[in-house]
Amino acid sequence: MTTTAPRQMKLGAFLWATGHHIAAWRHPKAHVTAGIDIDHYIQLARTAEAAKFDMVFCEDAAGLREANVGIASQTSRSIGFEPISLLSALAAQTSRIGLVSTASTSYNEPYGLARTFLSLDHLSGGRAGWNLVTSASPIEAANFGSTGLRPHADRYERAREFAEVVTGLWRGKPGGASGSGHDGQSFSVRDALDLPRSPQGAPVLVQAGASEVGRDLAARTADVVFTAAQTFEEAKAFYDDLKGRLAAYGREPDDIKIMPGVAPVVAETAAQAREKYEELQELIPDDVGVALLSSYLSISDLWRYPIDGPLPELPPSEGMQSRQVLVIEQSRRDNLSIRQLARHFAGARGHWRIVGTGAQVADELQSRFEGGAADGFNVMPSYFPGELDAFATLVVPELQRRGLFRKEYEGRTLRDHLGLKRPS
Amino acid sequence: MTTTAPRQMKLGAFLWATGHHIAAWRHPKAHVTAGIDIDHYIQLARTAEAAKFDMVFCEDAAGLREANVGIASQTSRSIGFEPISLLSALAAQTSRIGLVSTASTSYNEPYGLARTFLSLDHLSGGRAGWNLVTSASPIEAANFGSTGLRPHADRYERAREFAEVVTGLWRGKPGGASGSGHDGQSFSVRDALDLPRSPQGAPVLVQAGASEVGRDLAARTADVVFTAAQTFEEAKAFYDDLKGRLAAYGREPDDIKIMPGVAPVVAETAAQAREKYEELQELIPDDVGVALLSSYLSISDLWRYPIDGPLPELPPSEGMQSRQVLVIEQSRRDNLSIRQLARHFAGARGHWRIVGTGAQVADELQSRFEGGAADGFNVMPSYFPGELDAFATLVVPELQRRGLFRKEYEGRTLRDHLGLKRPS
Repeated sequence: MTTTAPRQMKLGAFLWATGHHIAAWRHPKAHVTAGIDIDHYIQLARTAEAAKFDMVFCEDAAGLREANVGIASQTSRSIGFEPISLLSALAAQTSRIGLVSTASTSYNEPYGLARTFLSLDHLSGGRAGWNLVTSASPIEAANFGSTGLRPHADRYERAREFAEVVTGLWRGKPGGASGSGHDGQSFSVRDALDLPRSPQGAPVLVQAGASEVGRDLAARTADVVFTAAQTFEEAKAFYDDLKGRLAAYGREPDDIKIMPGVAPVVAETAAQAREKYEELQELIPDDVGVALLSSYLSISDLWRYPIDGPLPELPPSEGMQSRQVLVIEQSRRDNLSIRQLARHFAGARGHWRIVGTGAQVADELQSRFEGGAADGFNVMPSYFPGELDAFATLVVPELQRRGLFRKEYEGRTLRDHLGLKRPS
Repeated sequence: MTTTAPRQMKLGAFLWATGHHIAAWRHPKAHVTAGIDIDHYIQLARTAEAAKFDMVFCEDAAGLREANVGIASQTSRSIGFEPISLLSALAAQTSRIGLVSTASTSYNEPYGLARTFLSLDHLSGGRAGWNLVTSASPIEAANFGSTGLRPHADRYERAREFAEVVTGLWRGKPGGASGSGHDGQSFSVRDALDLPRSPQGAPVLVQAGASEVGRDLAARTADVVFTAAQTFEEAKAFYDDLKGRLAAYGREPDDIKIMPGVAPVVAETAAQAREKYEELQELIPDDVGVALLSSYLSISDLWRYPIDGPLPELPPSEGMQSRQVLVIEQSRRDNLSIRQLARHFAGARGHWRIVGTGAQVADELQSRFEGGAADGFNVMPSYFPGELDAFATLVVPELQRRGLFRKEYEGRTLRDHLGLKRPS
């Protein structure tokens, strides 16, 4: 699918209630009930579509995520729409932009999930994508029966079978299998879906798992990989590793688009950008920062350790292993205290932060894109709508001037935008 | 909640791809890909809203319903959108009309379902309703694991617990229980939902079960009951029975709105209406009629019996018991052959058929409404959009002239329209 045209980067607009900065809800310009304001989301989707973003992206977790640390009211997204209903509403108010929602392989059934995403795909004219997650949170588990969180490897084995059934169903196969139905370890599905093939061949499959087994699952099945990397080296290593795994599954490097998260703070001048950033960082309460860090590390008693001391030694966890490694490496790299580490990660929730002018942000993105560390980026504005507007106004035109980003949509479907093969 | 204003009937617009008549897809005016045409559904919802209908209503079943008889391509709804994504899209294109979707207690989890409907409720400004079904079809069961269809009583016991959790969650209770979480026979749920209370207090709960255990569940929890009745006597008996069960649960008769299905064929003159009806009936292939009758009777070998002979004696079934009884009683009442019975039920899929002018249809509706056999009706147009347009143009104004139906919405939420109490 690569053509003679210069390679251009892909951009996602990661929507998240008041904003991605952990203290966005405390910002003077914050829209505190954004999570349940459909007009707010329509405005964001239209801004992203006018700027020719490939897609809007919604995460999800079915539960009060911060319930365990009693800070549900102190984070940017303690409440919000369920994302498939949200994106279906946005489908009716947009015409080109891709619509990607997270959904869990632990708390759904593959026939129902495949059907719902294909329905969204049809009603949006081929713009749907599913971000597969295995659900690492014990908070969600407690809302879906008493079995508790499954071990990491079991979750991924279930996810592998789940993805096999879903992608098969999307390709018109009864039971998602090659022959007549699927009868597997976790699932048994007899029929084909009661919907015709997708306008884009099949909805786009997004993944974000970064552990060994997560990378293998992505290499086997994903169209897009969303990832978190603080440094160029981390991003490049992940990129090369994942692209290198594709051949084993008979796939080509360009069959997967790798889109790390980026949390830009952008303004007309570098000083203004820095000032905006400092204003946000100052708003982070220490207990919120430590609580978020605890959840990344999958431990519950981090608050017992001195906040200005180092991170303690940690046991292996069944939670998000890759996120844990990221935090520990950052702590060692810069020799950070718990407070410093909490603030560092809380601000961008573990993602790459860029603070600067439109040209400076474009420089950084260009460097990782042309350096072979990314095919594009999932943009995580600090607060909405202000920082998405700033990115659309200051960064996108700069990328377009440099020939790094489209000025018009090339096609009508999300696969068209992403330059992905149409599944046969 | 009854006021001094005269009692008015409630109207639902039951949306169903090409139309409710079994042969609608063969009609010369049929829109054969209606099931996946979002613009078609937007048009229908706007027509219903302009006519001040209380709600649009969508059924659902996750599977190829007619797969077992090999006639998937010969019915009016072999393909179509998953209804929650559909109604979420319609929410963004309408402002007043209620949005009611069917979802199964057999193939969902209560936390996820409660959350999705409350999300639809928030993004529509308080217009969502859930039609609870227990899923009687073995076709669906085969797509959701190998456990098969649960026995009727077990399905309803699961549904009772499911409804208890969901309605509790909608009222802001952790786990849907009165205290701290729910730990029951089928489900265990710890948290409250990650959404604030509904703009209408709680989404509306609709049910359609008509067996003994189905009626008890409705009396315990439902706000609206959708039902099928051929005759005034059947409708009246059901109405009185269900209203009579409410006191046992501390509820008043007006706490539930009973809305039988009605399949009108309406035209400017009685002769034109009759002609339209005959044209549709002529389009029913015998094998399709017999196959549909078989599914109502939950038997697979009806085609073995002589088509011009009587219905054979039938064993008890684990499927939809009330529908089976309806068919058998009709067969005895009019001494119908299998062919005649198939055609009779196929046309309106078991529901009440009225053929006539706007005034004649209004007369019939008024008679059942004022005779105490219905609080309103779920209108099932034979084909879309033509027969919904005809009802909106010919019947609704007649009902309005008689003071039997609103000329403007009284409020903004579905509960407002239905005159239902706001849950505390």
